[in-house]
Amino acid sequence: MVRYKIEFSYNGRDFSGFQVQPGKRTVQGEMEKVLEKLLKTPVRLYASGRTDAGVSALMQVGHFDFEELGNLKTFASSMNAFLPEDISVTSISEAEEGFDSRFSAKKKTYRYYFYVSKSCHALYRNFAVRVNDYADISLMEDAAKMFVGTFDFKSFVAKKSGKTDFVRTIYSAQIIPIHDCLYAFEVTGNGFLYNMVRIMFGTILSAGYKKITPTDITSIISGKNRALAGKTMPAFPLLLVSVSYEK
Amino acid sequence: MVRYKIEFSYNGRDFSGFQVQPGKRTVQGEMEKVLEKLLKTPVRLYASGRTDAGVSALMQVGHFDFEELGNLKTFASSMNAFLPEDISVTSISEAEEGFDSRFSAKKKTYRYYFYVSKSCHALYRNFAVRVNDYADISLMEDAAKMFVGTFDFKSFVAKKSGKTDFVRTIYSAQIIPIHDCLYAFEVTGNGFLYNMVRIMFGTILSAGYKKITPTDITSIISGKNRALAGKTMPAFPLLLVSVSYEK
Repeated sequence: MVRYKIEFSYNGRDFSGFQVQPGKRTVQGEMEKVLEKLLKTPVRLYASGRTDAGVSALMQVGHFDFEELGNLKTFASSMNAFLPEDISVTSISEAEEGFDSRFSAKKKTYRYYFYVSKSCHALYRNFAVRVNDYADISLMEDAAKMFVGTFDFKSFVAKKSGKTDFVRTIYSAQIIPIHDCLYAFEVTGNGFLYNMVRIMFGTILSAGYKKITPTDITSIISGKNRALAGKTMPAFPLLLVSVSYEK
Repeated sequence: MVRYKIEFSYNGRDFSGFQVQPGKRTVQGEMEKVLEKLLKTPVRLYASGRTDAGVSALMQVGHFDFEELGNLKTFASSMNAFLPEDISVTSISEAEEGFDSRFSAKKKTYRYYFYVSKSCHALYRNFAVRVNDYADISLMEDAAKMFVGTFDFKSFVAKKSGKTDFVRTIYSAQIIPIHDCLYAFEVTGNGFLYNMVRIMFGTILSAGYKKITPTDITSIISGKNRALAGKTMPAFPLLLVSVSYEK
């Protein structure tokens, strides 16, 4: 058996998330269907992590095990020929010894897109959430920076998460201007809890709207209580930008 | 009568262009329907220029004439309440004396989005055209710069254009990296001919693929013959970014 590393992108809009669920259209489901068609046997596809319904990925990384596949560029093209338009395989390579797309992952970067406007925007509304124009972006920047470090993020996880270890390290967290009134909250960490980025952005937004101060985030983190943090923002503006396997 | 300046954005995907056409869904048609509903009488909406089927606008500018409308923020909100999701009004203001959204326009900026990849990309394919990864971006940059200046652009206009004056001034033209393998050709000029940006990008692409050299663009311009320039690229990656009324 050979382990293959696979990089792919998807538009989350029409998927019930990454993970296979009976009767639902999922990224894993669509990809495994194509693998089975090409390899004539069911093959399990693993990924660096699940993404929720509506969440997109610019570069998700996964792996699967199979016999020698021959030319991997040709195999990637064959997959793309059968995949629906909202998933594309970018590359397939033989994985290094011991590689596991989930457990070997060292860093992930997410972006949460938003635009600042009094009214809805025909172009941005498809992939970004609207923030009222009285939000203070510089306070949002200050708030984002408060997440950098190693903390117990129990205040920033959905209650239904089954996890018990909430300690994660955030390497960078910032508000980046994209164009015009369009921005993104970009965050890189060694891992993220269920709904964590969406709750982080909800809390940053509370700072932007002056319901809390940026420094309040320190006590929200140390309180280890979901009720202290901001609301869980919608999924569709969230994008998994990249997964890194280097220290 | 008062003349109103109106700024709006639209996602071109599901429109047969800006201009009203019988039996077709157009931006002008949808907006005039809403104006008629709110003002109880047909009102003509003019714009800085038509955009083709599939072309989007980040900030299109138009005007219309009507009696005193009262609070213009409220009126813009009322329009947005009735407009479909793929059009949004950003602002309405009383126009300066003599303002005409088309004839007073001094500069327009367009972006043509592309991504550089061997294979299709699930996220980018919705708004950007794919360019093969053997294209040379630095040659494309050199090619783009050749358009800056005042020239007769007869080689860069669709044959069916009814125009006879093809002289336009291009103030800037460049390839801008957006993120990852996503780029845009961004061009600002005092006006553009029918299909001009799409033909310019088709020609820049010929330079990227080394079918022509960047300096060949000088002779393509001076040849004043559509057959010399590159192909007309598809409409959907084209975005009207802004219209400026300042010298």
